[in-house]
Amino acid sequence: MTSLAAEPQRRGRRRRRPDSPDTSAPAGPNLRRLTNPFPAMELLSADQVEAIHETSLTILEELGIRVLHDEGRRLLAAAGCLVDESDFQVRFDKGLVMETIAKAPSVVELVPRNPARAVSMGGNGVAFATVGGPPNVSDLEGGRRAGTLAAFEDFMRLGQSFDVVHLMSPAVEPIDLAPGLRHLAMSRAMMVLTDKVPFIYSRGTQAVADSFEILRLAHGLDRGGFAAQPHCFTVVNANSPRQLDWPMTQGIIDFAQAGQLMVLTPFTLAGAMAPVSVAGALAQQNAEALAGLALAQIVRSGAPVMYGGFTSNVDMKSGAPAFGTPEYVQAAFASGQLARRYGLPWRSSNVNASNAPDAQSAYESQMAIWGALLGKANLLLHGAGWLEGGLTASYEKFIIDVEMLQMMAHVFEPMACDEGALALEAVREVGPGGHYFGAAHTLARYQTAFYPPILSDWRNFETWSETGSEDTARRAHRIYKETLRNFQPPPLEDERRAAIDDFVSRRTAEGGADLES
Amino acid sequence: MTSLAAEPQRRGRRRRRPDSPDTSAPAGPNLRRLTNPFPAMELLSADQVEAIHETSLTILEELGIRVLHDEGRRLLAAAGCLVDESDFQVRFDKGLVMETIAKAPSVVELVPRNPARAVSMGGNGVAFATVGGPPNVSDLEGGRRAGTLAAFEDFMRLGQSFDVVHLMSPAVEPIDLAPGLRHLAMSRAMMVLTDKVPFIYSRGTQAVADSFEILRLAHGLDRGGFAAQPHCFTVVNANSPRQLDWPMTQGIIDFAQAGQLMVLTPFTLAGAMAPVSVAGALAQQNAEALAGLALAQIVRSGAPVMYGGFTSNVDMKSGAPAFGTPEYVQAAFASGQLARRYGLPWRSSNVNASNAPDAQSAYESQMAIWGALLGKANLLLHGAGWLEGGLTASYEKFIIDVEMLQMMAHVFEPMACDEGALALEAVREVGPGGHYFGAAHTLARYQTAFYPPILSDWRNFETWSETGSEDTARRAHRIYKETLRNFQPPPLEDERRAAIDDFVSRRTAEGGADLES
Repeated sequence: MTSLAAEPQRRGRRRRRPDSPDTSAPAGPNLRRLTNPFPAMELLSADQVEAIHETSLTILEELGIRVLHDEGRRLLAAAGCLVDESDFQVRFDKGLVMETIAKAPSVVELVPRNPARAVSMGGNGVAFATVGGPPNVSDLEGGRRAGTLAAFEDFMRLGQSFDVVHLMSPAVEPIDLAPGLRHLAMSRAMMVLTDKVPFIYSRGTQAVADSFEILRLAHGLDRGGFAAQPHCFTVVNANSPRQLDWPMTQGIIDFAQAGQLMVLTPFTLAGAMAPVSVAGALAQQNAEALAGLALAQIVRSGAPVMYGGFTSNVDMKSGAPAFGTPEYVQAAFASGQLARRYGLPWRSSNVNASNAPDAQSAYESQMAIWGALLGKANLLLHGAGWLEGGLTASYEKFIIDVEMLQMMAHVFEPMACDEGALALEAVREVGPGGHYFGAAHTLARYQTAFYPPILSDWRNFETWSETGSEDTARRAHRIYKETLRNFQPPPLEDERRAAIDDFVSRRTAEGGADLES
Repeated sequence: MTSLAAEPQRRGRRRRRPDSPDTSAPAGPNLRRLTNPFPAMELLSADQVEAIHETSLTILEELGIRVLHDEGRRLLAAAGCLVDESDFQVRFDKGLVMETIAKAPSVVELVPRNPARAVSMGGNGVAFATVGGPPNVSDLEGGRRAGTLAAFEDFMRLGQSFDVVHLMSPAVEPIDLAPGLRHLAMSRAMMVLTDKVPFIYSRGTQAVADSFEILRLAHGLDRGGFAAQPHCFTVVNANSPRQLDWPMTQGIIDFAQAGQLMVLTPFTLAGAMAPVSVAGALAQQNAEALAGLALAQIVRSGAPVMYGGFTSNVDMKSGAPAFGTPEYVQAAFASGQLARRYGLPWRSSNVNASNAPDAQSAYESQMAIWGALLGKANLLLHGAGWLEGGLTASYEKFIIDVEMLQMMAHVFEPMACDEGALALEAVREVGPGGHYFGAAHTLARYQTAFYPPILSDWRNFETWSETGSEDTARRAHRIYKETLRNFQPPPLEDERRAAIDDFVSRRTAEGGADLES
């Protein structure tokens, strides 16, 4: 059932030595299922949350959302929305929005083909996903180049190799495949190379149905069994401002009907696709999110959904998107407050705008991670590998992110404060000016006392220099290659794998999916 | 009065355009005086705080602290401690510790020669200091080399140039000067090149008195006027475990007598100089801190002091110190709880163990900064420039840190949520699928809407590549050089400067200070 991906993973999940005489030593977190103990950061007062909420409902009621999807508009009209067919604008009664949203579950359990990899989206549960969506990949050796299926598969292997990565996003677009065939190859790779919760693109009903079928075959379930609980997720981006296009609206419908998780994320960059003020961008984000989430509940009451917050700002000198900024952090705190206002699980991201896996990429990512985790996000998308504002999946940044996520997982751990941890006996044993290296207390605990890094280099300058002065990116390069070299796919029964391959071959031969349907 | 250090500073303090039609646009924070709005992170339960507190008092009462200073032991004995002159151990009655500590002020206002640069240590006040103490400096061009007075002066110029840096620590040891002369040159440089709160080393009474005199001359105050309030600070490190050596104890006495701020910081690296468990290291930290702080209050009731938390862990494979680790973050959260337990202002640090100004240096620093600021530290030492676990002051890391600190200062800002910020009119103006670049709301606010970075590069990959693919460290290199080139020292009256120079010349001619007295 478990991955055999070896060293990095094993170092992440520290085990107590069986012969350890002191059983109170912490064994390290279960990286597979994380609970965020932080109190939620309440940046906004209750009145301010209400002001944003009310503004967003006014946007929905007075201005509306343009829905470029006939069936979507028909469903919304049938539910009581005012639809103007001359401009496709849909206006939502405030009461209707709130009643409809209330039907969404507050916790969604996602169960992939390996049930030991299930993650809980809601409450204090938090899970991390790989980067998703970039058209390019990069590493220090090959530089930046267009994505391929081979690169996509590499990132699936990397994602599988670390327990702190819980969900598999489509790390890079396989540009070398015809658009109508990509979903087949991506879903197959996710099922064959990983046993974690997979992402499926909303690129039309046919492609979504193909991917569901590949997942169903991997699970070994019949159609009813597969539909009985959420196994995968998609992201639907509103085309901000105030617009849902055809494939996005179709995705809302497809996922609600299938009972699979849909994350509605408006793309509200303050100053570009949203007002230049963070509160204004959040009001628009909230309006767009509630509209899409309401449609999902109209399609199927109780459909598993998630509130997506992605508000950031642009560089007002150039219009370039920025991530991990102070405004991004504040928007993450506030998005958490809004999601909790509606009792919805919510998604944030680990993002940065750097062009290299350098200091900027790390400090912007850290800002985004702390913003998300203090904001009590349940899902951190783009958790590992995102670079260049999402235009590149970076192999080195993937390893840097894994290190940062593992560190956060260890910060989450309760601090032992029992008699053994308080260590009065050890202080008694070691006199003034002495050291604890050989103390009995140390010997009993040192192997599991601290987080063991996979990337951070704590050697002194001289030793580090003598061995080549490798900076973090170069070490990350070595580690990603070593991880790929050591990769072993998770077990998958031969007949399931054959069924997947047969299906993918057949559908590929048929020309794949028509992405317009 | 203000620094003329120009560009980086001006960009940090954004101003509202006088002709701006919308006065509700935020003008950016006052970087000179920061208030931390975060709720304190309560990692430990109240019972756990009490368990650490009680353990530390038991350490003080049963085991005691070794004090290698005759006068220090005499003062402690006179106050009621049990002193064993055979091994210099001093045992503290629990009640005595608590009564004595209670005399310390909970807020300390530090007023440098430019009163507009005063900082408040206590409550929600928070201030950032330059790196202090490394024997080496490094930059990308010259590599790593021993510290010099010229390098020390460079870092003073850098510290003066950014408003987000509030206190001047001794950024690097001027190895090119005789030990007994260094304090003269360092204090002079701090007074001539900066107008911010200076640090003074506790290296014996004579050296401390010399530095106080240089500060007094820079302030233009008589002795009584200078002694009337705290103008500077020192750090006294306990020689963990459980020991106060001669110069450190003398520093406690000298600073308490002079009414200047003393920060008592035990050097408790879990697994080396402290127990391998974080709770145990904290109990020892607390015992050592309380002992030194009690001595200060015994010397002078109400002496300005600060609780220092520096607990981190070592790499148990090599014994190398590590910083910005998960354990470091937890210790920072808990140290804040302990300091608040005693109503004391407290100090944390921006630290990392990287050998280069790379991704590791940034993510470990970010962890440390978030640990400190969520822990509600009032003073962030080593705020800018620390590298290699404190063995090197890095010019490039200084700029990276300034960027990170400025970002945090902007996260501290309240989010505007008034009608203008909620931007309903702007949403009305921009239709579905449009953009906000030309909206009236955007034009009125864009100049002050977002934090303008000094280091982060948000240009797209193509533009960035065409202009040399400079990573963060290389950009930081350019920025530090440009900052030094543009540096203008803050105003200092000619007669004060002459008095300082006369004093330093005379004391230098006399051979400087005897550091053993």
